Amino acid sequence: MRKSWPYTTPGIPDEFFIRGDIPMTKEEVRTVTLAKARLGPGQVVWDIGSGTGSLAIEAARLIGNGTVYAIEQNPVARELIRKNIYQFDLKNIKVIEGRAPEALLPLPVPQRVFIGGSGGKLEEIINLLQIRLNPGARVVINALTLETLTRILVLLDQLPWKKEVVQVSVTRAVSRGNYHLLHALNPVWIIAVQKEGDEGGG
Amino acid sequence: MRKSWPYTTPGIPDEFFIRGDIPMTKEEVRTVTLAKARLGPGQVVWDIGSGTGSLAIEAARLIGNGTVYAIEQNPVARELIRKNIYQFDLKNIKVIEGRAPEALLPLPVPQRVFIGGSGGKLEEIINLLQIRLNPGARVVINALTLETLTRILVLLDQLPWKKEVVQVSVTRAVSRGNYHLLHALNPVWIIAVQKEGDEGGG
Amino acid sequence: MRKSWPYTTPGIPDEFFIRGDIPMTKEEVRTVTLAKARLGPGQVVWDIGSGTGSLAIEAARLIGNGTVYAIEQNPVARELIRKNIYQFDLKNIKVIEGRAPEALLPLPVPQRVFIGGSGGKLEEIINLLQIRLNPGARVVINALTLETLTRILVLLDQLPWKKEVVQVSVTRAVSRGNYHLLHALNPVWIIAVQKEGDEGGG
Amino acid sequence: MRKSWPYTTPGIPDEFFIRGDIPMTKEEVRTVTLAKARLGPGQVVWDIGSGTGSLAIEAARLIGNGTVYAIEQNPVARELIRKNIYQFDLKNIKVIEGRAPEALLPLPVPQRVFIGGSGGKLEEIINLLQIRLNPGARVVINALTLETLTRILVLLDQLPWKKEVVQVSVTRAVSRGNYHLLHALNPVWIIAVQKEGDEGGG
Repeated sequence: MRKSWPYTTPGIPDEFFIRGDIPMTKEEVRTVTLAKARLGPGQVVWDIGSGTGSLAIEAARLIGNGTVYAIEQNPVARELIRKNIYQFDLKNIKVIEGRAPEALLPLPVPQRVFIGGSGGKLEEIINLLQIRLNPGARVVINALTLETLTRILVLLDQLPWKKEVVQVSVTRAVSRGNYHLLHALNPVWIIAVQKEGDEGGG
Repeated sequence: MRKSWPYTTPGIPDEFFIRGDIPMTKEEVRTVTLAKARLGPGQVVWDIGSGTGSLAIEAARLIGNGTVYAIEQNPVARELIRKNIYQFDLKNIKVIEGRAPEALLPLPVPQRVFIGGSGGKLEEIINLLQIRLNPGARVVINALTLETLTRILVLLDQLPWKKEVVQVSVTRAVSRGNYHLLHALNPVWIIAVQKEGDEGGG
Repeated sequence: MRKSWPYTTPGIPDEFFIRGDIPMTKEEVRTVTLAKARLGPGQVVWDIGSGTGSLAIEAARLIGNGTVYAIEQNPVARELIRKNIYQFDLKNIKVIEGRAPEALLPLPVPQRVFIGGSGGKLEEIINLLQIRLNPGARVVINALTLETLTRILVLLDQLPWKKEVVQVSVTRAVSRGNYHLLHALNPVWIIAVQKEGDEGGG
Repeated sequence: MRKSWPYTTPGIPDEFFIRGDIPMTKEEVRTVTLAKARLGPGQVVWDIGSGTGSLAIEAARLIGNGTVYAIEQNPVARELIRKNIYQFDLKNIKVIEGRAPEALLPLPVPQRVFIGGSGGKLEEIINLLQIRLNPGARVVINALTLETLTRILVLLDQLPWKKEVVQVSVTRAVSRGNYHLLHALNPVWIIAVQKEGDEGGG
């Protein structure tokens, strides 16, 4: 049965998505990630390393007639994205097969970019974005490893982009018999950057 | 000058609000709090202990022709809420003077309730909600103190509501000369409960 | 082969202990827990719900000719404690079979008490401690669940003990191929209380 | 009046130290930092960027007839260190005036090094340590800024040292009238490295 999510707030519960073995951005971190992107109607959004597509699906619901490009190299994950798109009955997500940055070249210029995974090509992706993005465009990177965090910070130090860095740590009370264990989710570093200049539209 | 926030995502940056000395729910925690409430068009929302009104303002933008009642006993805070409402040019927030639970009695039954401050009357407020709320209604409490956390958990143990408890900790990289200090915001416990039963509408 | 730990600092690495399936207080939290207890030579220490015995073993090394009583109802855990005692070649730990509070009755009055697990008898244990402990005695409780945290705080509100409450969250960079994943350990609440009055000795 | 700390556990409460306006490593993080250093009798310890000297003082108590060199360029901080040394009546700390790495050159080779502040000379200090330290020596760095974290990780990637990285976040329940506010201390990244090879002694 298809899922319906009749609400305007993002943060669709994790269990609403089909997940398989692919790691998924948890709902609380997903919500903050979307907020830092500042989504709006008509935007073109790239979701690089889309995974289960949970971020792509939430974004698609928030951009009206805009389009999300979900770029993912793993065929198992792409299948999951397609299933989740079907579940939530969305028409404005295109699943793109291939690796960044090559797979990004034919796509229309985005106003918003999410980077959830970079397949070791973070520097090349950032270089491409620096060339192609228009003023006011925003990029939101989720870093789950020490190396991604370090690399993105070193890369951004050389760019004239406005940078915002937050770490979000969520602990959930998880039912265990008569108790609720305090279970920590892994912290996620959210790095939001905006290309110098104002957006033409929004 | 009035602020415009042309985006569909919540999480309006803290600095967009007029704040004074009243504590404000920070944007990341505000975003997750709104998500846990599951807001949608036409809802009646109570924001008990509204403070600066940042949560009320975000909620008002997400419920279309619904109405937010911002209940606040502190006149300085109420003045701030009114200024922020003016800033964001919102028509669907009513500022309610008085203390909960008394001030809640004349208000229409809400589908969603935020509790940011209880003025020591948490038990009375929860009792009122248990009587007045319809099935499927959701209540989201932000606890910043050990006592509020403990009391709400003890109270909820006696109610047949579905309970979800998360702690959200945000660390921000704050510019200090050539460095970015890792600055921890105080953790907030977000307790989201749903009254047994399905919502009639949404 | 027996382990040697020639250092004066606590915080023996987790992998030095034999663990089985019994949960263990991780080295960083163990270190802070020991610190809050303020251990010294000659003390009698109770470790209630001793688990793998890691806290008991560290304590034993820090109290000279004092004695640690490791109380544990689970025979599998008791076997682990004994193996760990052998490993670290300690003579001043006594493993006590049984449940608290009953198993505590024959034991000599402690100057320091750790509570890692209470088998649902937290109230009875605290009542016993309130009666038996001498002025200046310290009790350190590790709470990993919402219920233990709530109960201990409600109980302590009725006692004239000086209370200190901290939450410790540790994230470790864990090697995964070429990356180090930021892996969050579950947060632990450490509640340290001191019975009114000064210690006679130390 | 002089302070006495008759306990064998580190983690002397913050308020036992004279602090002035100099930032101090808080007791919980100090305790874990000391643990990661693995201190023992007879060690030579460098405390680079000693600040209030709280780490130096705790270390001095744990190394018996060893010696701590507290290197600090700020005269106000050096005065604080001296006052704290007097308070705790310690004979085995030498306060070293000057900047690292220059000030380190005349000092005896250490078995343990703390780096709390580097005055922008982190690379030079690490290079010096790589040359001078003997196998098995341990270095523990506390990073409070994004830049220090990034730089130390980039530097360590080029060295054959065994690296351990943890982030420690402490939240304290702080009394505010009838409530205890959950107050987050800033997170500290603790990077512990050990030079390849075994220690000759300990």
